[in-house]
Amino acid sequence: MQRTSLSPADALSALRAEAPLTQCITNYVAMNIAANTLLAAGAAPAMVHTVEESGAFARIARAVTINIGTLSPAWVDGMRAAATAANEVGTPWVLDPVAHFASPYRAEAARTLLALRPTILRGNASEILALAGGDTTARGVDAADPVMAAEPAARQLALEIGGVVAVTGTVDLVTDGTHVATITGGSPLMPRVTALGCSLTCLMGAYAAVTTPMHAAIAALALFAEAGERAGRVAEGPGSFGWQFLDALAAVTPADLDANGRVSWG
Amino acid sequence: MQRTSLSPADALSALRAEAPLTQCITNYVAMNIAANTLLAAGAAPAMVHTVEESGAFARIARAVTINIGTLSPAWVDGMRAAATAANEVGTPWVLDPVAHFASPYRAEAARTLLALRPTILRGNASEILALAGGDTTARGVDAADPVMAAEPAARQLALEIGGVVAVTGTVDLVTDGTHVATITGGSPLMPRVTALGCSLTCLMGAYAAVTTPMHAAIAALALFAEAGERAGRVAEGPGSFGWQFLDALAAVTPADLDANGRVSWG
Amino acid sequence: MQRTSLSPADALSALRAEAPLTQCITNYVAMNIAANTLLAAGAAPAMVHTVEESGAFARIARAVTINIGTLSPAWVDGMRAAATAANEVGTPWVLDPVAHFASPYRAEAARTLLALRPTILRGNASEILALAGGDTTARGVDAADPVMAAEPAARQLALEIGGVVAVTGTVDLVTDGTHVATITGGSPLMPRVTALGCSLTCLMGAYAAVTTPMHAAIAALALFAEAGERAGRVAEGPGSFGWQFLDALAAVTPADLDANGRVSWG
Repeated sequence: MQRTSLSPADALSALRAEAPLTQCITNYVAMNIAANTLLAAGAAPAMVHTVEESGAFARIARAVTINIGTLSPAWVDGMRAAATAANEVGTPWVLDPVAHFASPYRAEAARTLLALRPTILRGNASEILALAGGDTTARGVDAADPVMAAEPAARQLALEIGGVVAVTGTVDLVTDGTHVATITGGSPLMPRVTALGCSLTCLMGAYAAVTTPMHAAIAALALFAEAGERAGRVAEGPGSFGWQFLDALAAVTPADLDANGRVSWG
Repeated sequence: MQRTSLSPADALSALRAEAPLTQCITNYVAMNIAANTLLAAGAAPAMVHTVEESGAFARIARAVTINIGTLSPAWVDGMRAAATAANEVGTPWVLDPVAHFASPYRAEAARTLLALRPTILRGNASEILALAGGDTTARGVDAADPVMAAEPAARQLALEIGGVVAVTGTVDLVTDGTHVATITGGSPLMPRVTALGCSLTCLMGAYAAVTTPMHAAIAALALFAEAGERAGRVAEGPGSFGWQFLDALAAVTPADLDANGRVSWG
Repeated sequence: MQRTSLSPADALSALRAEAPLTQCITNYVAMNIAANTLLAAGAAPAMVHTVEESGAFARIARAVTINIGTLSPAWVDGMRAAATAANEVGTPWVLDPVAHFASPYRAEAARTLLALRPTILRGNASEILALAGGDTTARGVDAADPVMAAEPAARQLALEIGGVVAVTGTVDLVTDGTHVATITGGSPLMPRVTALGCSLTCLMGAYAAVTTPMHAAIAALALFAEAGERAGRVAEGPGSFGWQFLDALAAVTPADLDANGRVSWG
């Protein structure tokens, strides 16, 4: 399926018009907030993970997202089946290699999935650096490295998978190996709320159903940046940020995204 | 155990007086919000799923609920054991066949559980139509069909299982195959919050511990309709609706349900 | 590693300064709220459960917590591997034997883990009484027994495991078998929100990374008591309590804990 480049504003309009069915294989922590994120933004989430149906469902979904946050062998089987099926029918899929450097088992799972060449790879700087073979000082799920330090690694990985790499942090970076875009906005409270990054991965999948991988990653980041900034202005802590962010995701309009240009190319 | 027909108001009083222990085998997305829904309403949830204990626990629980949202083989084993044990001891149980038409594996699981004849079957119109062998245009977890279109299918299924079928949507419908009740209320924000339907299934189970299946389904729907309408009046989006709905579930009194008659028979 | 006794105030300072990486093997209901609790308080949660990596991760985590709320055989394997690895490297770990009396399978899992001698054992009065071989009137996850009735059982268990036992309820009690501390505060809304006890278990683990087991349990309870009391003053129900509690966890300062002495020794 040929997709068109769309601005964050036009991509949001398309997302809401089409409400693409998005299969999310994500971790137990993120399940609820990721589904609510997609519903608030305008997409249609479906959490379908087991190998007995993950491939079959990937053939009817318009996008697939895979996150290894709380993986186990049966889940990795389901992830591989979904990614393989998505590849066979040309459905875009997103990989989120959460803390893949934290154990040999996790590293192997990430390598196996990366070899299936995701349409979009999303991680924090530490995850992207480590995937490209670089050094990281990170321990667990935190990013200990700055986003910009990961640009060369992101470019390299994008060329290797023939797809798009998104590195998220205080500033976000998206590259297809040649072009680079950065996105600004958000709130310092975002890392204090669990699984927002995982939810973003799912949202990138939903956007990849309506526009090109590069513009899907950018559109998801622009919506998160805008909604995060709004919620951050009124939140009194991580608890209130959580639900105010969902309200903001639903309230942001395409015109808001046009007005608050958050994307720079260069 | 012989249960008495109770109005939504009296059923709520009984629920709060007895706080029935309700075993919920539900999906990963719904786990937290379903438990919070039952606690807010006044019941005592217990999430116990694995086959090694699901049957044993069903023998001490006062009701069991089964939802196939994020199923896998081990979970289906646990569901069958719980339903079988519930049947053996005469404990009511509720089946929620989430998106059973979305894959052959899921369809087979739903058929297997339906053959165990749940006390209450709850689904959206698309799920009920497809279970009865009818056509649906639905893809994932969304209902693409109107509730009233599912009335014949609901009646037929109710007679087949010798139980009650509840079809939920903008208007809700409950039938035992002979009688039909409709329930109105709620908020357009409810489909924008994930797993509220799954939580409703668990609440129907809790009510089935204190009244007849027909009145349990109606009472749960009436409480959801009242709490949903209250939350909908003050919510500014799906995020605020989520917690305001829980506050409303806890705040609604039996007198409120009497005053705002939401149930029609016919 | 030798840890120092710290007051709740100093322990909170240390927690925020060090943000200890805390491996939480917890139940599906608690996953999200437990991670958010640790992030709000200042720790770094990591949900890593599968036996293929739980032991390896326990060797790099600064604390491990294990909760049997929604156990199954594969998870019990992961729990045992994590506890064993934690013991080998001298990392503190906390056991939360949720409703272990509710089925033979659950009881056996709790006994197996208890035999590995957790650094801290946390439960409600019913769970602690039953673990020590006493009678309980509890059915599911609720505590049906008062905290103080469990003091002898808690002392006995503390001596048996060579660790600390925390019994939580309206008043909380911590003992190492010799000394006893009680902690007051919190809100009647806390039992109406699911998985706060499970989240507390995870927080005790995080504190055990920065101070002694006895002071870790006390510090976690003092922070919960303070944040719970604050949230309880403004909440209008269990839904609003949920997010206001997270805001309060993030807002409480060490000076607040010093000012509102909640701990009594005796």
